[in-house]
Amino acid sequence: MYRLYYAPGAASLVVHWLLIEMGQPHALQRVDMDARQQKSAEYLALNPNGTVPTLIADGRPLYEAAALVLYLADRHAEAGLAPAVGDPQRGEYCQWLLNLANTVQSPMRLWWYPQDLHGLPEDAVREAARRRVEAAWERLDAHLAARGPYLLGERVSAVDFYLVMLMRWTRKMPRPGDAWPHLGALAGRMKARPSFAALYEREGLSEWR
Amino acid sequence: MYRLYYAPGAASLVVHWLLIEMGQPHALQRVDMDARQQKSAEYLALNPNGTVPTLIADGRPLYEAAALVLYLADRHAEAGLAPAVGDPQRGEYCQWLLNLANTVQSPMRLWWYPQDLHGLPEDAVREAARRRVEAAWERLDAHLAARGPYLLGERVSAVDFYLVMLMRWTRKMPRPGDAWPHLGALAGRMKARPSFAALYEREGLSEWR
Ligand SMILES: N[C@@H](CCC(=O)N[C@@H](CS)C(=O)NCC(=O)O)C(=O)O
Ligand SMILES: N[C@@H](CCC(=O)N[C@@H](CS)C(=O)NCC(=O)O)C(=O)O
Repeated sequence: MYRLYYAPGAASLVVHWLLIEMGQPHALQRVDMDARQQKSAEYLALNPNGTVPTLIADGRPLYEAAALVLYLADRHAEAGLAPAVGDPQRGEYCQWLLNLANTVQSPMRLWWYPQDLHGLPEDAVREAARRRVEAAWERLDAHLAARGPYLLGERVSAVDFYLVMLMRWTRKMPRPGDAWPHLGALAGRMKARPSFAALYEREGLSEWR
Repeated sequence: MYRLYYAPGAASLVVHWLLIEMGQPHALQRVDMDARQQKSAEYLALNPNGTVPTLIADGRPLYEAAALVLYLADRHAEAGLAPAVGDPQRGEYCQWLLNLANTVQSPMRLWWYPQDLHGLPEDAVREAARRRVEAAWERLDAHLAARGPYLLGERVSAVDFYLVMLMRWTRKMPRPGDAWPHLGALAGRMKARPSFAALYEREGLSEWR
């Protein structure tokens, strides 16, 4: 039994979605971000980064959304969402996971939280972050055009769920991720999964349905 | 047989170090960064991010340093550098890998490449990046104080190699990573490994010995 500290639509979304998709029993614990509960002493003891998600697994707290994607998809191999160690596609799978974490999620966080870069004009940080995010979409769309429809080709995997969460976060950017044609097609296919509707209902989401 | 595209001291260092440590046969292909070879059409066809490292494994190019750490340590399980899927420490291992990639390497890259954030004053970007890097060292040092001496406690693993590379990159920052006591102790222990001396010799490195 897992326990997920989450906030609707936040970086916890991909973890929640995968737990539903894989049919893994879990309890939800909502973190009130308006009340800055993620910076409370109690929460910081679980996750010193003071961000959501945190997942309690086997009684121990784990954090970093992409790490939880990696951990859960490998652990519940029967769901078929991760090429196993030794599978010829394992290398690509690792590559896309880290590429999304390092090259896409990081500048995207700066778009949402320009104040992370203390002392810089927030508008200019967002503008620079926007360029980097768009360059990443450009690269990912070209990859999907050549080798899609999913990041690993014909095979859907946990990194596609992660990619869709990241696209969702750009829905208010001047050019959202799903405006690129192959990214948009991937998003459409993933949003048609029954687990997506269940996720939206449980998190009380309505935008970007 | 692997082929590693590298530049001395760059993000390829951890991959090279692990290949030596694990005794895996590999050929080295130096990328001339002064000549901006990483942005040549030939190289971009292997790695559209235009950065090092790229690893050719089973004839296919893979990139993102942290992804290569993950991939190689799992694939060569006999080296004992990654808790296997199912091991009680697997979750922590994933967490630290992604924490280093997402929360440490990303701001560190901004310190080295402030021009990544186009249009912002480079000094101010470096200053903001410095604060974030130091906050990360603070958190990691506290973790090692409580649960060290390695990131996974008594057990050395691939994430420690990655952490040492990141510390090395801060050697010219006002407060280098190894100035924190538990981080410094970890660095000292890792640098005493024979593979570290071999790495330095093969990459022709001398600083931060
Ligand atoms: N690297 C972390 C970042 C998570 C993150 O940025 N979470 C945001 C919500 S999407 C958050 O908790 N923000 C609140 C804050 O930073 O105070 C991860 O991937 O889990
Ligand atoms: N996310 C990439 C980043 C690698 C990276 O930043 N490499 C640097 C050298 S340490 C590079 O190739 N810089 C040249 C450039 O950006 O043009 C990874 O982890 O592999």
